[in-house]
Amino acid sequence: MDQKKVDLKSYALELASKARKASRALMEIPVSQKNFALEKMAELIRLRAQEIKRANEKDIEAAEQAGVGGAMIDRLRLTDSRIEGMAVSIDQVAGQTDPVGRVLEGYIRPNGLKIEKVRVPIGVVAIIFEARPNVTADAASLCLRSSNACILRGGKEAIHSNQAIIGAIREALGSAALPIDAVQLVEQTDRALVPELLQLDTLIDLAIPRGGESLIRAVVAASKVPVIKHYTGNCHVYVDKDANSGMAEKIVINAKCQRPGVCNTAETVLIHQAIAEQFVPVICEKFSQRGVEVRGCPKTLSYFPKAVAATDEDWAAEYLDLIIAMKVVENVNEAAEHINRYGSHHTDAIVTDNLPTSEVFSRLVDSASVMINTTTRFSDGYEYGLGAEVGISTDKLHARGPMGAADLTTYKYIVHGDGQLRE
Amino acid sequence: MDQKKVDLKSYALELASKARKASRALMEIPVSQKNFALEKMAELIRLRAQEIKRANEKDIEAAEQAGVGGAMIDRLRLTDSRIEGMAVSIDQVAGQTDPVGRVLEGYIRPNGLKIEKVRVPIGVVAIIFEARPNVTADAASLCLRSSNACILRGGKEAIHSNQAIIGAIREALGSAALPIDAVQLVEQTDRALVPELLQLDTLIDLAIPRGGESLIRAVVAASKVPVIKHYTGNCHVYVDKDANSGMAEKIVINAKCQRPGVCNTAETVLIHQAIAEQFVPVICEKFSQRGVEVRGCPKTLSYFPKAVAATDEDWAAEYLDLIIAMKVVENVNEAAEHINRYGSHHTDAIVTDNLPTSEVFSRLVDSASVMINTTTRFSDGYEYGLGAEVGISTDKLHARGPMGAADLTTYKYIVHGDGQLRE
Repeated sequence: MDQKKVDLKSYALELASKARKASRALMEIPVSQKNFALEKMAELIRLRAQEIKRANEKDIEAAEQAGVGGAMIDRLRLTDSRIEGMAVSIDQVAGQTDPVGRVLEGYIRPNGLKIEKVRVPIGVVAIIFEARPNVTADAASLCLRSSNACILRGGKEAIHSNQAIIGAIREALGSAALPIDAVQLVEQTDRALVPELLQLDTLIDLAIPRGGESLIRAVVAASKVPVIKHYTGNCHVYVDKDANSGMAEKIVINAKCQRPGVCNTAETVLIHQAIAEQFVPVICEKFSQRGVEVRGCPKTLSYFPKAVAATDEDWAAEYLDLIIAMKVVENVNEAAEHINRYGSHHTDAIVTDNLPTSEVFSRLVDSASVMINTTTRFSDGYEYGLGAEVGISTDKLHARGPMGAADLTTYKYIVHGDGQLRE
Repeated sequence: MDQKKVDLKSYALELASKARKASRALMEIPVSQKNFALEKMAELIRLRAQEIKRANEKDIEAAEQAGVGGAMIDRLRLTDSRIEGMAVSIDQVAGQTDPVGRVLEGYIRPNGLKIEKVRVPIGVVAIIFEARPNVTADAASLCLRSSNACILRGGKEAIHSNQAIIGAIREALGSAALPIDAVQLVEQTDRALVPELLQLDTLIDLAIPRGGESLIRAVVAASKVPVIKHYTGNCHVYVDKDANSGMAEKIVINAKCQRPGVCNTAETVLIHQAIAEQFVPVICEKFSQRGVEVRGCPKTLSYFPKAVAATDEDWAAEYLDLIIAMKVVENVNEAAEHINRYGSHHTDAIVTDNLPTSEVFSRLVDSASVMINTTTRFSDGYEYGLGAEVGISTDKLHARGPMGAADLTTYKYIVHGDGQLRE
């Protein structure tokens, strides 16, 4: 093994060992002390806003010199309002009911055993993400809320911003007499460090990758640690024959156009055949006005000849761009089948005033979030009231959909007896 | 690729495709129809008891001819009372509240969105187990209760028994007009089939291996499908200085001796130093009378010189036999540290009358089940009131401890709006 690999291994082991030790200490910390630390984090982020911005300037300059694209620069940039946004988000997490210690179930068995199922922290969580520095503050606050130690590995291009944010967060931990290694930033930006970290399954309990599909697939492929993730967001809006057409137009446009580059944006519109002749030309005209390219099935093309013919790849595509696929379907069942076959089990919407139809849709569509008469864009932790989110899961085990602090807990059974024996 | 491998791949694909199709159909089945099918399962198991016993005789004869050991023969054998036990277990599952459709949380957001978090089936579950044919009936009934399709792969040595039991179960499904492929037995007993099945992660949502550590490690190593499992059960009883000594003796003996070959049996006893001089000789004498070999730390040896000196391997061992490790510890913190370091995070008990000590123990011990003043042997699904269990998890994600029907569900968010858009 060459020296570089030895050094990476030993750095990964040091990070994970410190995190494990901190996580044991967090098991004994009272809620009031965690609240104090969270309030202090928000306070220090506000106090250090100028310092954080100066660090961010270094990252922006380096990115510009490296010729990085405008969208990435935008994600990377910290303005006063974005820094205030980070602090507000931490305030909200500080105000949440602590998930740890909550009794999920409790009952007494015929032999007198008192059985409690109680929320406890998972332990050590590694979060691997890309350019956006606000993820650093969200992840750190949600992990502390749930008494988990975290190891944060942000994008190399945000290293100075993340160091400044983490500096404030660790100072807050220290001033609350909490172990500062409860939040650690990976300072070593070599990509080869991540796979080393993900081998340490006795020290790290959970990995959450956030970012593009290639990052997530690389994490899953390299990890011995359990991973929760979503690969892509191929979200659908189905416009039923019983939809309010004005509402349907607004929802479809909002789902595609309000922010095209994110995972809960719609990529395909499905339209009931009975209303297609009226609805397709109207919605396609609106898309054209907004510069959105429509890729349609043969029926769509017959109602809006300017559309491009869709291929099978279009049904599965996550465009993250001003392009939308469109298909005319026979009924809600065909819509659900199409979504289950081509979708990414992330978020899918129906627009209908027909109650039984909405129930068929929400039962058959096998996705983390099903929206009825509203836009797919609402599928996120803040909108669901979780304060912030540590990620969105399209997995079926453990947590599904936007993940907040409670999703970073597991449970244990605590069984109280007075000498019962098994015969 | 040779013809055998082609055949195994195509058989695995056929099983998984049929299961996926059945799981989609199960999404629309009313509770009453599932209840009818479960009642019919229990009825047909009772009606076919003689037939099931004849099939079991074939397995027993083959096992005896193959020179299989007595413990295995015992696990394999179906008596009238064991068959009645299977039927009673199905009756209990039939009587449970259906977990599917349960609203776990529901609230209205400031913008009027009504957010519901609703239990739904996971989809397709593969269960890989060893000789005990009663697992077949338990797993099938819990999967049907939770509207999951299942693929059951029992040990080769139980194939005739499993075929007879599954025959009755599938007839019950048919008579309730349910898809019979909701429960499938793997008839191909070639070991190479299992890895093929575990590659099909788009068709199978969860794998649960049950059996010895080598079986479970093989499943984890081969699987692209998420696995929930426990490798071993290295369970502890800690006898505190404030224990009622009579209760402590009975609990320690019960935890080790009531059924030494199972996962929730104690393998190590930890004893507080302040009571060790009195307690060690008494408990060791009782162990000797029952033929249990004690492997002790130096202090244990000083109080009971007939004990064997323990090595570091003893602290980590799952004996599944009449052997117990014994260590004198300084206090409850050292006990918890020892358990977290050497244990398997399965089930660990404390005996104490001191309330703060019991709280320190239950907070610090990082195990699926913590028992206070009772035996580790109670850690199972039936004793926790789950009716039956589909396995015990020492993982921290998704389900921890004994898993019943509710643990075979996930959830989805259903968001009801009336035209809300995201600005």
